[in-house]
This record gives sequence, structure tokens and C-alpha cells, in this order.
Amino acid sequence: MGCGCNEIEVRAYICCMPEQLFSYQQLFDFTFLIIKKIGSSDEHAETAARALLSADLRGIDSHGIARLGGYVRLWEVKRVNATPDIKVIHETPSTAVVDGDSGLGLVVAPFAMKIAIEKAKQAGTGWVSVQNSNHFGIAAHHAMMALEYDMIGMAMTNASPLVAPTFSVDKMLGTNPICVAVPAGKEPPFVADFATTTAANGKLEILQRKNADTPLGWVQDADGNHSTDANILKKGGALLPLGGDREHGSHKGYALGAIVDVFSALLSGANYAPWVPPFPAYVPIPAQQPGKGIGHFLGAMRVDAFRPAKEFKDAMDHWIQGFRNCKTIPGEEKVLVPGDPEREFEEERMINGIPLLDVVVDDLKRLAQKFNIPLH
Amino acid sequence: MGCGCNEIEVRAYICCMPEQLFSYQQLFDFTFLIIKKIGSSDEHAETAARALLSADLRGIDSHGIARLGGYVRLWEVKRVNATPDIKVIHETPSTAVVDGDSGLGLVVAPFAMKIAIEKAKQAGTGWVSVQNSNHFGIAAHHAMMALEYDMIGMAMTNASPLVAPTFSVDKMLGTNPICVAVPAGKEPPFVADFATTTAANGKLEILQRKNADTPLGWVQDADGNHSTDANILKKGGALLPLGGDREHGSHKGYALGAIVDVFSALLSGANYAPWVPPFPAYVPIPAQQPGKGIGHFLGAMRVDAFRPAKEFKDAMDHWIQGFRNCKTIPGEEKVLVPGDPEREFEEERMINGIPLLDVVVDDLKRLAQKFNIPLH
Repeated sequence: MGCGCNEIEVRAYICCMPEQLFSYQQLFDFTFLIIKKIGSSDEHAETAARALLSADLRGIDSHGIARLGGYVRLWEVKRVNATPDIKVIHETPSTAVVDGDSGLGLVVAPFAMKIAIEKAKQAGTGWVSVQNSNHFGIAAHHAMMALEYDMIGMAMTNASPLVAPTFSVDKMLGTNPICVAVPAGKEPPFVADFATTTAANGKLEILQRKNADTPLGWVQDADGNHSTDANILKKGGALLPLGGDREHGSHKGYALGAIVDVFSALLSGANYAPWVPPFPAYVPIPAQQPGKGIGHFLGAMRVDAFRPAKEFKDAMDHWIQGFRNCKTIPGEEKVLVPGDPEREFEEERMINGIPLLDVVVDDLKRLAQKFNIPLH
Repeated sequence: MGCGCNEIEVRAYICCMPEQLFSYQQLFDFTFLIIKKIGSSDEHAETAARALLSADLRGIDSHGIARLGGYVRLWEVKRVNATPDIKVIHETPSTAVVDGDSGLGLVVAPFAMKIAIEKAKQAGTGWVSVQNSNHFGIAAHHAMMALEYDMIGMAMTNASPLVAPTFSVDKMLGTNPICVAVPAGKEPPFVADFATTTAANGKLEILQRKNADTPLGWVQDADGNHSTDANILKKGGALLPLGGDREHGSHKGYALGAIVDVFSALLSGANYAPWVPPFPAYVPIPAQQPGKGIGHFLGAMRVDAFRPAKEFKDAMDHWIQGFRNCKTIPGEEKVLVPGDPEREFEEERMINGIPLLDVVVDDLKRLAQKFNIPLH
């Protein structure tokens, strides 16, 4: 980004910022205890802590422990139920609908993914749409649960509206991410996890700190004009679907975000489109609520429901090696396979620790004091 | 496009070109008879003609009858089998792998989609990966087969390599389209059908005829530099994944194209990545063939495997109306729902006929003469 920080710092959205290092275990224990304190069971607190911290490990810091205070505030305003009765309310051999009972998405999504995996064991594939949930952290954590069973995992979620469809001024969709995780053999798995917008909100925040502009194609202003103002969301502007504008295929990014909304919320009975509840507890929920909570969609496909797993994984290795060996464009070192950067983060941070911004540490200290939990 | 042609002409990729009008029935009968002449059964010829002509009806002229001669040439070089024994070679309650026996994709894909639909009737969802096939026309035709059963339909296919992954000079993926078709109630269905590139090849051809440049973000040159040369593919250049460059999210478009390849070919045992056979019969097949033919992936999800169909379709109507009623950005008339432009084409062309470029008509006349079939 031209600021002297290395790529890891830029991607982790901590460039140019004061930070402190914590071990994974420190942050895991802290998160576990905080979630216990709001009333969750040991099992739920462990599931939630693992899901939340997977974001910090993988370098998606905007979705990790930085949000712990936000989840607690949702519990305080009674939008998160710490002791949910999560259950299947409808099912067929390969499908289910799960009611999250307003639980943490960090707990509800792994519950739903386990059902998808069990369905896939029996029927070849399993597909679970979820209503009445909350923010689920990073999609990759849930999708990757399928990998150890030699299954392809999928996870998506809708989110509150920040994105304007092609030709629209109104914000109608969330950044609605999609993750697909594919097992390989000797190679590490293929894990694609991406928002269906040109750029996610976290990237705007990096630019805000530097008083820098966004490239064209990331955002528009409140009237729908092109903009490069990194603060435009606070002024009524919108994120743009992947593609940016019609000429560059934004109708495709819009369609992808819409598909995530349909699978996550229309199939389950969750809120959809502009009616999805916001993450910040202080932002009021839209008056009209056509469904319940936030929606997710989880899927698992057993590889050997199609062909022998060994054959498939050998072919994936061959596929992956082909991409890694591509000739690169000028100035680039290597062609990446989806999941490479996040895996490198995870390996590095498990050894060297997870850097947290001072502002995040301050928020955690306030939580520590409020709940009388040590942060060390 | 600034040339005075209307949007229908531009989108149909016939702007500024001499054209002739034919009725749907004329072109259907001609296609049916040609495919019969290469040895196909009545049933296969009818299935293929319906699939092929659906592209012309929906305004995707690059994938319609303009390709009929190309399919015939593939049959002439024995890469298309006119009397394939298409069969399921592996299955579970919700999955199957189909061997297309080198048949026309126009026949193989509907066969596979029917199996997906039958699986969905029993198991809630059905997912079919296809090996040993050929070009299948437009994805929407196959995905939309699910709609009449109140199912969500999905179709994707890999294709020969024209697309460079992010940071790569080498072309590793096809334009690998994805279609998702979703039934609604009073509103017409939601049908998103798009290549996973910024712009499809057909759009380059329009610009070539006008000696116009492409926008930045569509293509790169043979060394991987930015380019705006609409003829760049003939000079060793590549199409770019949706997003265009890393800063605008091309790694997401690359991931989408890769997912299509994995589902279509790695799961089925078809050729993948740069080894997918090309459509033009005169282009040699890559020497290394890790699989069989081209791969597709077809899926069907019964809506009422999740919630009552009436409830789902009412919610889809509400969703669609919300998007249609968005405030528009300056200069745009309305916000579209995926599938709107293609449906408008279909309604208009069923009444007024299908315009074909003179060059396409000339190619059809040569076929007519060769097979002694009238074109009238």
C-alpha cells in the first residue's frame, strides 16, 4: 500500500497501527471465559471461541476477537441468546432447516454444518439453511469442517445491507460471503472465502486511517455517483458488487450476493435483502421484519459420492500444482491457490502470536474489567 | 455503445451488422433436421435443438444457432458422437456421475439435469457431475428445467482455457459460467447466468468489428500487461477473471472459475484447467488429457425440502419487488432482477423473430447445401 508495512500487516488490516502480540491460547482462553460469563455452556463457549479465533489466525482480523465486544453488546440488548435451543425444524434425506433460536452464529453455524456433514454421510450431500441466527464469524471456519471427512464444504451468510445492486442507489444486500473448501491429497486444501463485493469494509477502514482514497469501483456516493471517498459509507454511500460497474460485470457480483441471500434466508425463513439486522447493537433493527434473524447456508458434498476419494484428491493435487507453476505477470512473485495467504497467516501466527491493535486491546480490557476476567 | 444501435442489438451482439429475421420455428426445424442428418435420434435432435435455440431466444446469440456449424465440424472430426450411450456410472441418493459418451453437451446436460431433478424428488436435492461431454450451449436452459418442479436449478460447465488467473500470464481456466434459477410466485423466476470473467468473448467481438478498444480490466496481453486491445486473444493475450485485477477483486473471479472447474471436472473425471478440449474442431486437443471430454455440474434443490413452496415463492415475490422498486443511479431507468433482460428478449423474439447476422446465415446455407436441407 506504499506505507512501508509488509503485506501481512496490510492484509491483516493492521498496517501503520500500534499493536500488541498475544498467543492463540491466551486469546482463546479469554474468549472462552467471556462467553461463559454471558451464560453459555462450556460446549458453546468452546465452539464459539474456536470459530471466532479462526479469523484472527487466518488474518481476517476484522471478523475475529475484535468483534467479541460487539457480540457481548448484542447479548446485552437481548438480540443474542446465550442459551439457545438450536434445532432442526424441517428435513429431508439431504436437507434441513435449522432454527438458531437467536444464538451466536459462531455456535449455530457449526451446529448446522455438522448436520450437513451427517446428511452427506448418508445421502451423498447435505444442505442446511439457517434462520434466526446472528453473525457467524468467517465462512471458512464452517466450510472447512467438512475437509476431515473428505467432503467439499460450503458456507455462506447474508448480512445487513451495505451494497447497492447494479444501477441502484438503495443498499439492498450485505457483503454476503461465499466459502468453498475442497480437500486435496499431498497439497493443502483449496479454500476460497470471499465477500461478493469488490472490496470488503475492512479495506475501507485501512484507507480511512491513512486519509487515502479508494480505487474507482469500490464505492459510490449517496446519489449513486462514482466515488473514491473511503468514508463514503458514513455519508450514505454504498459498497459496490464484485465487478464495480456494469461495464466491468457488477451485475454478476450483484447476482452472487443475491444467490447467497436466497439460499441463506429465503430457503430458511430468515430476514433478507435490506431487512437483515445490523451487527452493531446500537443500530435499530429495521421496523419491517419479514423473517427471523440472520440466515446462513451450509453444505457438504462427500467426494466419494462422485468418484473414489483417492482419485479425486490426486487430481486436485495435479490441478493445484498446475496453478502454482504458472508463469507470473511482471512484478508478481507467484500465482496463488485460494487459501494460500490465510494458511500462511495461520502457520506464522500459531508460532509468533496474533497481533492486536491497541484499540482492540483496549476494548478487550474493558470486557476483562466488566466480567472480572484476566487478560494476560 | 455509442453507435446508434439499440440495447437489444448491442446485447445480442449484432449491432451495426446486416441481419435477417427468422421465426423460432424455422430455426428449430432446421436445427432438428441437421442434427438428425449427422445420425442423432429424433429425441436427441429435439432436445439439442431446443437447448441450442434457447440461446437465440434469450439474446445470447454467441451460443445459439451460430454454433450449429461448429458442432457439425466436431462430429466430422469424430469428437462428437451423434449416437451416445449416456449413462450414470456412479450414484448415491443425492448424487450421480454421468458419462456423456462424447455426445453433444446439448443432449448430455439435459439428461444429467433430469437425473438431478429425479434425485431431488426423492432426497430433497440432486447433484450430477458430468464427464466426457461437449459444449452444452447456455447454462440457463438446463438450470431452468428445475423451475416447473418448484426447484432451484443450477448449471455450470468448464470450457477451454482463455482466462489467466490473478498474477498469471498462462491461461488456465475457461469462461466457466454459472447459472442459478430460482422459482418465484407471481413474479417471473430469478435467473442469473454469467461467465466468471469480467466480459465474455462475444463482447470482444463486437468491439473488434468497430475497431474499438476494450475498457481496462477485460483483457491482458501475452506478457500479462494491462491491455485494451479487443484482438488481444489472437495475439496470445487472455481474458481476465471477474474483478479484472487484484485491486478490484480478480482473485474472487478466479476462485469462482476454479470452483466451476472442480465441480464440473474434478468430481466427474473430465478434463480440467488448461487441458479442456477447445470448441473449434480445427484446434488440436491438448496432448496431455487428464480426464474425459468437457465437464458439467447440474443441481436441483426442491424448495419444499426447506419450507412450504407457497411461503418460499411469496417471499421471492417480495424480494423481487423490493429490488425492482429501488431508486436508480443517474441516467439509469430501472434496477433489474437477474433474468429480466433475457426474458424480455425471449418475449420479443417469439413474436418478431430471431435476427441472424448475414455471416451466420451464410454458414447455415452451407450446412443446408451440404445436408440437402431447406433453410426457409
